[in-house]
Amino acid sequence: GFATLDTHRTLRVGMPEVVFAQGKTAAQVAAIARKLAQRGPLLVTRLDEEKAGPARRAVKGSRYDPVSRTLSKGRMSLPVRGPVAVCCAGTSDIPVCEEAAVTLEVMGVEPVRIFDVGVAGLHRLLARRGDLDRCVAVIVAAGMEGALASVVGGLVGKPVIGLPTSVGYGASLGGLAPLLTMLNSCAPNVTVVNIDNGFGAGFVAGLIARQG
Amino acid sequence: GFATLDTHRTLRVGMPEVVFAQGKTAAQVAAIARKLAQRGPLLVTRLDEEKAGPARRAVKGSRYDPVSRTLSKGRMSLPVRGPVAVCCAGTSDIPVCEEAAVTLEVMGVEPVRIFDVGVAGLHRLLARRGDLDRCVAVIVAAGMEGALASVVGGLVGKPVIGLPTSVGYGASLGGLAPLLTMLNSCAPNVTVVNIDNGFGAGFVAGLIARQG
Amino acid sequence: GFATLDTHRTLRVGMPEVVFAQGKTAAQVAAIARKLAQRGPLLVTRLDEEKAGPARRAVKGSRYDPVSRTLSKGRMSLPVRGPVAVCCAGTSDIPVCEEAAVTLEVMGVEPVRIFDVGVAGLHRLLARRGDLDRCVAVIVAAGMEGALASVVGGLVGKPVIGLPTSVGYGASLGGLAPLLTMLNSCAPNVTVVNIDNGFGAGFVAGLIARQG
Amino acid sequence: GFATLDTHRTLRVGMPEVVFAQGKTAAQVAAIARKLAQRGPLLVTRLDEEKAGPARRAVKGSRYDPVSRTLSKGRMSLPVRGPVAVCCAGTSDIPVCEEAAVTLEVMGVEPVRIFDVGVAGLHRLLARRGDLDRCVAVIVAAGMEGALASVVGGLVGKPVIGLPTSVGYGASLGGLAPLLTMLNSCAPNVTVVNIDNGFGAGFVAGLIARQG
Amino acid sequence: GFATLDTHRTLRVGMPEVVFAQGKTAAQVAAIARKLAQRGPLLVTRLDEEKAGPARRAVKGSRYDPVSRTLSKGRMSLPVRGPVAVCCAGTSDIPVCEEAAVTLEVMGVEPVRIFDVGVAGLHRLLARRGDLDRCVAVIVAAGMEGALASVVGGLVGKPVIGLPTSVGYGASLGGLAPLLTMLNSCAPNVTVVNIDNGFGAGFVAGLIARQG
Amino acid sequence: GFATLDTHRTLRVGMPEVVFAQGKTAAQVAAIARKLAQRGPLLVTRLDEEKAGPARRAVKGSRYDPVSRTLSKGRMSLPVRGPVAVCCAGTSDIPVCEEAAVTLEVMGVEPVRIFDVGVAGLHRLLARRGDLDRCVAVIVAAGMEGALASVVGGLVGKPVIGLPTSVGYGASLGGLAPLLTMLNSCAPNVTVVNIDNGFGAGFVAGLIARQG
Amino acid sequence: GFATLDTHRTLRVGMPEVVFAQGKTAAQVAAIARKLAQRGPLLVTRLDEEKAGPARRAVKGSRYDPVSRTLSKGRMSLPVRGPVAVCCAGTSDIPVCEEAAVTLEVMGVEPVRIFDVGVAGLHRLLARRGDLDRCVAVIVAAGMEGALASVVGGLVGKPVIGLPTSVGYGASLGGLAPLLTMLNSCAPNVTVVNIDNGFGAGFVAGLIARQG
Amino acid sequence: GFATLDTHRTLRVGMPEVVFAQGKTAAQVAAIARKLAQRGPLLVTRLDEEKAGPARRAVKGSRYDPVSRTLSKGRMSLPVRGPVAVCCAGTSDIPVCEEAAVTLEVMGVEPVRIFDVGVAGLHRLLARRGDLDRCVAVIVAAGMEGALASVVGGLVGKPVIGLPTSVGYGASLGGLAPLLTMLNSCAPNVTVVNIDNGFGAGFVAGLIARQG
Ligand SMILES: Nc1ncnc2c1ncn2[C@@H]1O[C@H](COP(=O)(O)O)[C@@H](O)[C@H]1O
Ligand SMILES: Nc1ncnc2c1ncn2[C@@H]1O[C@H](COP(=O)(O)O)[C@@H](O)[C@H]1O
Ligand SMILES: Nc1ncnc2c1ncn2[C@@H]1O[C@H](COP(=O)(O)O)[C@@H](O)[C@H]1O
Ligand SMILES: Nc1ncnc2c1ncn2[C@@H]1O[C@H](COP(=O)(O)O)[C@@H](O)[C@H]1O
Ligand SMILES: [Mg+2]
Ligand SMILES: [Mg+2]
Ligand SMILES: [Mg+2]
Ligand SMILES: [Mg+2]
Ligand SMILES: [Mg+2]
Ligand SMILES: [Mg+2]
Ligand SMILES: [Mg+2]
Ligand SMILES: [Mg+2]
Repeated sequence: GFATLDTHRTLRVGMPEVVFAQGKTAAQVAAIARKLAQRGPLLVTRLDEEKAGPARRAVKGSRYDPVSRTLSKGRMSLPVRGPVAVCCAGTSDIPVCEEAAVTLEVMGVEPVRIFDVGVAGLHRLLARRGDLDRCVAVIVAAGMEGALASVVGGLVGKPVIGLPTSVGYGASLGGLAPLLTMLNSCAPNVTVVNIDNGFGAGFVAGLIARQG
Repeated sequence: GFATLDTHRTLRVGMPEVVFAQGKTAAQVAAIARKLAQRGPLLVTRLDEEKAGPARRAVKGSRYDPVSRTLSKGRMSLPVRGPVAVCCAGTSDIPVCEEAAVTLEVMGVEPVRIFDVGVAGLHRLLARRGDLDRCVAVIVAAGMEGALASVVGGLVGKPVIGLPTSVGYGASLGGLAPLLTMLNSCAPNVTVVNIDNGFGAGFVAGLIARQG
Repeated sequence: GFATLDTHRTLRVGMPEVVFAQGKTAAQVAAIARKLAQRGPLLVTRLDEEKAGPARRAVKGSRYDPVSRTLSKGRMSLPVRGPVAVCCAGTSDIPVCEEAAVTLEVMGVEPVRIFDVGVAGLHRLLARRGDLDRCVAVIVAAGMEGALASVVGGLVGKPVIGLPTSVGYGASLGGLAPLLTMLNSCAPNVTVVNIDNGFGAGFVAGLIARQG
Repeated sequence: GFATLDTHRTLRVGMPEVVFAQGKTAAQVAAIARKLAQRGPLLVTRLDEEKAGPARRAVKGSRYDPVSRTLSKGRMSLPVRGPVAVCCAGTSDIPVCEEAAVTLEVMGVEPVRIFDVGVAGLHRLLARRGDLDRCVAVIVAAGMEGALASVVGGLVGKPVIGLPTSVGYGASLGGLAPLLTMLNSCAPNVTVVNIDNGFGAGFVAGLIARQG
Repeated sequence: GFATLDTHRTLRVGMPEVVFAQGKTAAQVAAIARKLAQRGPLLVTRLDEEKAGPARRAVKGSRYDPVSRTLSKGRMSLPVRGPVAVCCAGTSDIPVCEEAAVTLEVMGVEPVRIFDVGVAGLHRLLARRGDLDRCVAVIVAAGMEGALASVVGGLVGKPVIGLPTSVGYGASLGGLAPLLTMLNSCAPNVTVVNIDNGFGAGFVAGLIARQG
Repeated sequence: GFATLDTHRTLRVGMPEVVFAQGKTAAQVAAIARKLAQRGPLLVTRLDEEKAGPARRAVKGSRYDPVSRTLSKGRMSLPVRGPVAVCCAGTSDIPVCEEAAVTLEVMGVEPVRIFDVGVAGLHRLLARRGDLDRCVAVIVAAGMEGALASVVGGLVGKPVIGLPTSVGYGASLGGLAPLLTMLNSCAPNVTVVNIDNGFGAGFVAGLIARQG
Repeated sequence: GFATLDTHRTLRVGMPEVVFAQGKTAAQVAAIARKLAQRGPLLVTRLDEEKAGPARRAVKGSRYDPVSRTLSKGRMSLPVRGPVAVCCAGTSDIPVCEEAAVTLEVMGVEPVRIFDVGVAGLHRLLARRGDLDRCVAVIVAAGMEGALASVVGGLVGKPVIGLPTSVGYGASLGGLAPLLTMLNSCAPNVTVVNIDNGFGAGFVAGLIARQG
Repeated sequence: GFATLDTHRTLRVGMPEVVFAQGKTAAQVAAIARKLAQRGPLLVTRLDEEKAGPARRAVKGSRYDPVSRTLSKGRMSLPVRGPVAVCCAGTSDIPVCEEAAVTLEVMGVEPVRIFDVGVAGLHRLLARRGDLDRCVAVIVAAGMEGALASVVGGLVGKPVIGLPTSVGYGASLGGLAPLLTMLNSCAPNVTVVNIDNGFGAGFVAGLIARQG
């Protein structure tokens, strides 16, 4: 076939290959998804609604979520140390957050959603400290200037995964501005993933949450 | 002479010409400073200590400050609505803040210094709310990720002047990262000046503070 | 709900939360607008004509303006020191100027429109000096090279808010060129907001215009 | 004093404030270090050898390491889940790695050094798989093209912290090239910190290694 | 006509002029293709399916391939030293690889396809060492972080042509990230062509493969 | 009206205001064009075919050219020193060249077209030396790498106006690559205009060609 | 020797080869200068004072100017249409202006110096209109935001050569800001040369000034 | 020790490990060089004269060349198909060319030097066509605008390796301008290496020149 599947990835890195649907045809996605779903949990990301049909039909029991644009089935059952918080600055960042949340769910980790708590109204975040405190890691999605990651980083003694989004315009440079903000964070517990990469943020947070 | 002085600038824009010493010789600075000091208050910025001597001697009663690298004499006496806060995120931003503070003083406006209150320890800023509240405008200097401007912007109903600094390394890109952060601020009361431009921040804040 | 509204923002920063419609669905905008309009003046920005219907119907008495792409209702009635000039270099900058003007109107401040006075024909600007002189602050919108901000800055002793626009092509880099121009202005009374951010420019100018 | 120390940071984020010596005078560093060392373990980073004297003398029992340019004293004793690997592509990346290693040591976590194993000779890395496997997280420092992070990411089921360095020339753009490489990693377990930020990489890895 | 064909290019550089269809009308492409096909093998690149008809009809015996978006006819018959490997990291890079492969075929060189062998699962590449070893040059197409070029470069003692692709999002910057990766490769046998330039990669590899 | 026409521009700079239609409505263009055409020659640039109707009807005798996307009427009749060459590297650069040629014609200067003579086949350019030699200035349009400007610059002792175009892909960065090429030309007679700015190139060349 | 001198350049482009001393040793400069001075006027640019000795001694009658960092001898005597204005925004731009002025003098063209007339005080420029009007071309050097080129462009009907300088800091990006400003000028008579390239600006202006 | 030498690199890629001295101490270089020289030919690059002593003494028979900043000993003796041309545009590019030439010599390939033949005087290049024609590959080093690579590419039917240099200033952006020029070359036989990477260019050309 056209693809060289990485079939022992679960053994090696503790998670099956995840399908990146962008740039693939609906038929290619369906073929790959069917093959992967035979061996364990399935996750397909960046799958537009119009392209999701064939894959959803190819994998019985799979579920398509239009907000996160993911197709998924099953969840892993490794022991976990605790939940992961998924925060965002504005309501426009929710789709990216949901991609992270679905990824966590497939990994068997509980996501705790803390949405629309941007720094222009800090009391909204401070009201959720209890939720932050019971998590083992925090994902912070933010576009525009991305300052929320630093503020959260200053509040918790846990790893914070900065997830810059392309929300904004002009000098936000398609997400480069919040990316730079997070990379330069004065809070040293912040690491960063690619712009709009909800999957990557969820995946690393999931690994951190794992026992052992 | 080599320079074309703008002698009726005070009439036109309410402040005499200010000398930008960078890229001028000590002799050029001294010659210009002497001429300008004959007509009103004097302010020379970006004047390195080794280069300050001739100008200081040329203008009797002038004062050189090595932290802000300014030479100044006199102050304007226009009516003023209130003081201006000058905040910064870290101690390395202090020289830029002092350039702003000296500018305010020459304009006859009181600067209120609120230093080293970066977002990694927000309580330090919240402890100074009283000081913020009595000012008519706020200058926020920050390097690295520059998130402090957005946080201050969310706390006060006054104009906030974002003053990005070149403090940082790597992806701070010589101050471009905090500059972008401030330009994309989700707090809409933030406007921005050039990297390390303490003089410009002080000058605009001084204009805002003026009566009438 | 999906959004965490910042309901005491007026108390804190003197203006209710303004809705940024870009990236939200028509239904989300309508729901948020209805809730915010119950407590005070309403302003929704970046609302495309096709998406405006539900929000306009949800808020009785609201008004949609297709040039500025804003929906608004009511105006604040705090005491004000004077009007604000809104200048632009070319006719293509008018939509961004109107976003600033509508923002000023909702804040209860009078905008003075001075349009199409770019530096390629300076006499057009000089003919409007009287209008500039009666304002307490000046907004200058310009795309292409953005030189107008510096020229206005040299003419008035008031705060000038540089508002770079994405008008232009090629090396204008989507507005980065006029943004850089304004940040480097040799006129020290110029501060800058994000590209095409008419709302932010209007908001800061409105704050400056306020009494006390 | 000039600095506003964040004295309850340990309570809040599980680690005392760490001093960033770059841009501070030797006297400032010494003053801050003395105060912080009274309350717990001390870490000063980016401290040049010529500037280290006063701080070393101010804090009895402190140790200066010229390779990592750190001054440190004491170590935390929180329970830890396992060691952290610190890999690098070439010998020029060692100083940055050592900054990470010292940070881990102060946090009470054992660093496992795996140096000079760049992808141009992959067998060198594969020979160290046993070491990688016994760690709970992996730091990968690399300059030039930074490909090592992706390769390590594909080999281990642990969080990988990409640490781009400024080693290289020309199109490495002072470390931006490996930074971009790591942000775009096709291995989804890679998160990234700022260029040359060994401290941040060590700190996050230390948090991940902590029990509970 | 509108075009100045370079009719003795084969004599000079060993290959007829190749048509770059992007930005030309279907009629212009057909006219140029007809003229060139009278003198030797024909290759048209970047020809969208909707625009291909007139040229295909104008040149009898020509073949349009929708994956590589090429129209071609005939092949050169110069003596050749061996085949060329065409590798890629992911299935989304296949169209660019096929542009390279068709170019090689028109030059009379055999392409050896090694697809979907990205560094997140290195064993897939190592399984194809035999194929790599029998080639005289290797083309490596990769988007996202582009690390595959360095890894292949470290495995073979042949020229490697790095072919960055625009596959990816966010910080991949439309292919600039893998381009920088390949330019900074620590494997010194890697040279680089423009993003998505399958034709150029195939052409240079074809020249290297030529006898004499 | 919405526009502030610069009606004495011809007196001041020797050419009436030229209308930049991009970003204006068809009605706005028609209104401005009608007013300007009453006073002298008319030139409208960047006017898409679908938007041209109203303006063409508003100005009797005007002529719309779809290749250069210009509407024009009349020509100036100042004394001229000689023709201007308009060269381009590839056939895709022709529209930009035609914008320059039409501008020259409206200024009363003869354009000499030398098209598709890129450096990959230098003999094509050398064959046109006679044409180059009888011109008083040379415009060189080129996309991709833009090397043609330097080569022409080395052949003639006249001012060369480099006109970078957005033809290309990937690392051509929308025309930034040929823009940089031309700015760094080792031939010192090359000056540069904005990407795709055929109007500006034609206008300056026209001024150079003028007598006196 | 190490250099391949272009000895018939005068015949071809009307000016002998000019030596770019930066990156050459004092001995290399002296050797090349001696050879070139045997055939006509000599110009060496970017020659630091410490490196100038050998060349000055090698060419009898040559003159070193430390402000422009040029070594020159003789002047061309072709017929000329008029002088060229050399303007600058601030006194720090004078060295670059002087490089242009010396180049003009070697070409036999009179430079008219109009210095320190930046847009923050426009009356200074307007006071020199008579001087601008008697010139056949205008060079405008400016750093920081570079707005002066557009303003001059709007005042004169002559070719204006924008000469961006590296004067400034922060967001001036080493001269990229004024470079972009000038490339995007709304005055269409502005063309642009490289940052700090006084030689190139002078050379093109000299060609424009030539008779015939 | 601190370094993990790649001792079977010759077997794998046909050339021993080459030492990149930049960022290493003189002692580190000497230690590595001694070890590598025991097994075959030695090449150390980017070795400043002041740092070369220890390594030169550590390896008997080694030779230090200050122009290319290389230390070398021995040469490989694999069968070769022909010489490689090493061209450059200006005399300032010679050090980078010499790094390529020394690399070729160590690989047992003859370099043919064609220096100072930039496009501002094309006849200088055309005079060397015979030399170009007898080579199996061509290296073209150029700074400033880098146009020479395209011109050479259009003249020869051989692989051309574009070697951008950091020679230039302002908009050459430290070599990014010629790098982009070469990547966008309209001559399709051009591939590119990193800025100033003479070693890489020489190495790939050497591989191409090898028999079999
Ligand atoms: N046009 C605009 N540009 C930038 N920020 C805006 C704009 N309109 C509203 N905002 C800000 O965006 C925030 C609302 O974001 P959200 O919660 O996503 O609706 C508010 O804090 C506003 O101050
Ligand atoms: N896909 C491609 N990418 C880059 N250059 C190409 C491509 N296809 C053809 N070319 C080159 O583009 C030139 C043709 O340009 P044109 O005259 O506009 O057709 C030829 O010299 C080819 O070498
Ligand atoms: N194609 C073009 N590119 C750049 N500037 C142009 C172009 N066409 C007209 N202009 C300039 O744009 C200005 C008109 O702007 P506006 O007032 O928006 O019509 C005039 O001063 C012209 O010199
Ligand atoms: N200051 C300068 N800036 C840019 N180019 C220059 C300068 N001075 C001389 N040149 C050009 O550089 C070339 C000489 O390069 P070279 O052979 O390295 O001396 C000549 O073609 C000159 O036109
Ligand atoms: Mg909100
Ligand atoms: Mg502090
Ligand atoms: Mg207009
Ligand atoms: Mg090594
Ligand atoms: Mg795959
Ligand atoms: Mg062609
Ligand atoms: Mg001045
Ligand atoms: Mg030369």
